[in-house]
Amino acid sequence: KIIPLWVSVSCQKKDFDACIHAHKMAEESHRQDSAYLLIFIMLLTLTILTIWLFKHRRFRFLHETGLAMIYGLLVGVILRFGIHVPQSTSDVVLECAVNASPATLLVNVSGRFYEYTLKGEVSRGKDHQVQDDEMLRKVTFDPEVFFNILLPPIIFHAGYSLKRRHFFRNIGSILTYAFMGTVISSNLLVVVGQLGGDFFFTDCLFFGAIVSATDPVTVLAIFNELKVDVDLYALLFGESVLNDAVAIVLSSSIVAYQPTGDNSHSFEAMAVLKSFGIFLGVFSGSFALGMATGVMTALISFYFTKLRDFPLLETGLFFLMSWSTFLLAEACGMTGVVAVLFCGMTQAHYTYNNLSRDSQDRTKQLFELLNFLAENFIFSYMGLTLFSFQSHVFNPMFIIGAFLAVFLGRAANIYPLSFLLNLGRRNKIGMNFQHVMMFAGLRGAMTFALSIRDTATYARQMMFSTTLLIVFFTVWICGGGTTPMLSIYVTFAISFRVGVDSDQEHSVSN
Amino acid sequence: KIIPLWVSVSCQKKDFDACIHAHKMAEESHRQDSAYLLIFIMLLTLTILTIWLFKHRRFRFLHETGLAMIYGLLVGVILRFGIHVPQSTSDVVLECAVNASPATLLVNVSGRFYEYTLKGEVSRGKDHQVQDDEMLRKVTFDPEVFFNILLPPIIFHAGYSLKRRHFFRNIGSILTYAFMGTVISSNLLVVVGQLGGDFFFTDCLFFGAIVSATDPVTVLAIFNELKVDVDLYALLFGESVLNDAVAIVLSSSIVAYQPTGDNSHSFEAMAVLKSFGIFLGVFSGSFALGMATGVMTALISFYFTKLRDFPLLETGLFFLMSWSTFLLAEACGMTGVVAVLFCGMTQAHYTYNNLSRDSQDRTKQLFELLNFLAENFIFSYMGLTLFSFQSHVFNPMFIIGAFLAVFLGRAANIYPLSFLLNLGRRNKIGMNFQHVMMFAGLRGAMTFALSIRDTATYARQMMFSTTLLIVFFTVWICGGGTTPMLSIYVTFAISFRVGVDSDQEHSVSN
Repeated sequence: KIIPLWVSVSCQKKDFDACIHAHKMAEESHRQDSAYLLIFIMLLTLTILTIWLFKHRRFRFLHETGLAMIYGLLVGVILRFGIHVPQSTSDVVLECAVNASPATLLVNVSGRFYEYTLKGEVSRGKDHQVQDDEMLRKVTFDPEVFFNILLPPIIFHAGYSLKRRHFFRNIGSILTYAFMGTVISSNLLVVVGQLGGDFFFTDCLFFGAIVSATDPVTVLAIFNELKVDVDLYALLFGESVLNDAVAIVLSSSIVAYQPTGDNSHSFEAMAVLKSFGIFLGVFSGSFALGMATGVMTALISFYFTKLRDFPLLETGLFFLMSWSTFLLAEACGMTGVVAVLFCGMTQAHYTYNNLSRDSQDRTKQLFELLNFLAENFIFSYMGLTLFSFQSHVFNPMFIIGAFLAVFLGRAANIYPLSFLLNLGRRNKIGMNFQHVMMFAGLRGAMTFALSIRDTATYARQMMFSTTLLIVFFTVWICGGGTTPMLSIYVTFAISFRVGVDSDQEHSVSN
Repeated sequence: KIIPLWVSVSCQKKDFDACIHAHKMAEESHRQDSAYLLIFIMLLTLTILTIWLFKHRRFRFLHETGLAMIYGLLVGVILRFGIHVPQSTSDVVLECAVNASPATLLVNVSGRFYEYTLKGEVSRGKDHQVQDDEMLRKVTFDPEVFFNILLPPIIFHAGYSLKRRHFFRNIGSILTYAFMGTVISSNLLVVVGQLGGDFFFTDCLFFGAIVSATDPVTVLAIFNELKVDVDLYALLFGESVLNDAVAIVLSSSIVAYQPTGDNSHSFEAMAVLKSFGIFLGVFSGSFALGMATGVMTALISFYFTKLRDFPLLETGLFFLMSWSTFLLAEACGMTGVVAVLFCGMTQAHYTYNNLSRDSQDRTKQLFELLNFLAENFIFSYMGLTLFSFQSHVFNPMFIIGAFLAVFLGRAANIYPLSFLLNLGRRNKIGMNFQHVMMFAGLRGAMTFALSIRDTATYARQMMFSTTLLIVFFTVWICGGGTTPMLSIYVTFAISFRVGVDSDQEHSVSN
């Protein structure tokens, strides 16, 4: 909602006064939007300066994302309790005889037509008061901003910076963790869902899916500094990246499943099969699209070899092709974020080697920056939203159940699967590393984005609030605790081959 | 209008069918938006590949921006005449008793509230048909996208890549050209305005202001390759950059002047004085804000010297501070684009030298890329809009008059001012260079963005159509003709010191 939106109202000769009024209002609204966006930019600036201070002082108990959340929290508290903005009179409530809410509305105001677009449903307070607090509503972004603007660069960067040789060497284990793991923890959550009371079967599945998307950033940043064994690194990174892809497609196919059923608590075999079919179709479709544009970019950069003389053109082409993957996938009804992930991997595998040395640096740095900014933005927004979101539902039973389920689900994922995988692996996954994987299952940007996407019903609001707490807990406690934990392991050097960085391949390593 | 806008409609338990319908519609709308945005991305990709071909073959008659326009034109023709999309049924026309058009609309649909935001007025065809062609309306961007997203990086890049030593050495001449020149050509246009018929005095002034913003890109790109005398280069570049700033502030203060008058053709001394006061206030305010954040960034990068060890943090900080200049200026009611220009100049002057070598490259490359993409996007959109805009008004008399006035205005600006300036300059501005400056007065992105901002009245539509033609003509004919023209001068080596590139300063040169 904060994207600068200066509504351009134009004046006819006839009714001048009304028009000037509209003009002034549009200007005022633009000014406010700029001011609110400025708050976030300032937050990010502050985060960067503090990160620097932390890095400088070698203070590693809190990762930058955890820090961004703290600043977000502080601003949230200030906005919630500190400032009170009087209700604006610019909102008009129209009572009208439309059956459904259309995406576009043309309003006939004394002979002239104005186009309005749907922003979403407004949740009401107890006494049918629509505008609880305008300012808090203003600092709330359209949830789709996360999916269409902030997540793609993060996920692309993850794909682009994957150490491919080690990834493909461990592809079997990674796929097992990512797919089976998500399904296991998702099913476990169904049980917990009953604790929430007013939950549908699909709601539980949905919660399971979103909560099983683990975030690679925090732990990996620390791993990176400590130089852990690259195979295990690839395992953890690959798992958490693919995890996200599985979670997003799974959650959307569960939503697709919902309407067909009669929405009871029962379990319908056919509907589940159909859902599973949608999941497979969307996942493989997005995979294919991402691969295809990646390969196309590689071919262009291969045949137009003289493009190397113009790094700017090369970088521009690279950026545009990667972006078009996202748009193409969305236009085809696939999942853009997943397509972008596989596009990033393909680009790193094929295109990267065709680029000039200069462009290799440029693309790496560009996506590194975008990733950094987007990630810290999401985490500081997360902090803010704990106070600015107006329909939180905190149900103690559900929260405790969810926390238990999250950790049990992670355990039921890591230990049995590791045991099974170790039967076939030469480079065994040590018990200690299993503990680290268990501990490193942070929930982050993807989980948040998925849970904030839909907060209309009571059940979904409860899920959102609980998810927020899970993210806070895992990032602060697990994320903060990993460094000491790893340090202990490093000290005793048990089964960790720290410092073994066999990065001889020509890769896009960090 | 094309920014991916996936409206998240959420489902209540009660009315399931209506809700699923809304969901489907929102999905469909998002899919279409993605597809339309994809068209532009593909256009840009095509442009890049062709530019490369041109550069490779050393074909220099057409600049990349001219090329982008041609591709835009082709797509515009196809969309206009080739494809016909049936009217969608998603639009609902509401007749309601609101006096003004509010910025936000809350619609009560059978007990639930939906928030709608104003997109702007929809222009009607002859028989009060609102939706002329939905597709053409869909590929039309909100004009404010140009001001809030595309222009800032272009203008910042211009400021950041200015050769400061030569700029400040010629500051007097540059200011003279930029301020006096704009005023002269603006006044000349007032005469031409009468040819259009239904014009107000302010409309003429407005047209004069927007049409006098010359664009540096095309000619400078060629100058850059030929390595013309740096002083003259600085003169031309500085003039066209400041030009833009003057034009945007001037046009907005003319708009501010409009409502106070009784909107007659007459000339009111007081109102003009007030307008002039607004101009000075906004210009100096934006200048001060841009300088202030620039200096602040410089101080941060100076005191936090250890930030140099983390180029990513440094680049992030630089980017965020520069962006916040824009937002701060807009939030204060100043002009963001102007603030960004001066911020860029300050950053180049102070901050640049505090940055690490790595960050210097990164920031330069980042803004170079953003500038490149934004510029080509605007120019290809310009081509497209010649056919996709549905309210063109081509008035032959006005067009001829405007073309004459544009060239006479440029002449009345360059020759007399150069004569006056030469009285005081040691490094005289040669007659030949005056011809080049005269010829190099292309109109580009800024002129276009200013003229498309408001196309509600008949007069403004006529201005927009004429401006479009002026931009096409100057970019293709003047831009294309500058290379041969310069080559002739170079051959005869008259008063041009080509090849003299005394770039010893530690600067952000291109």
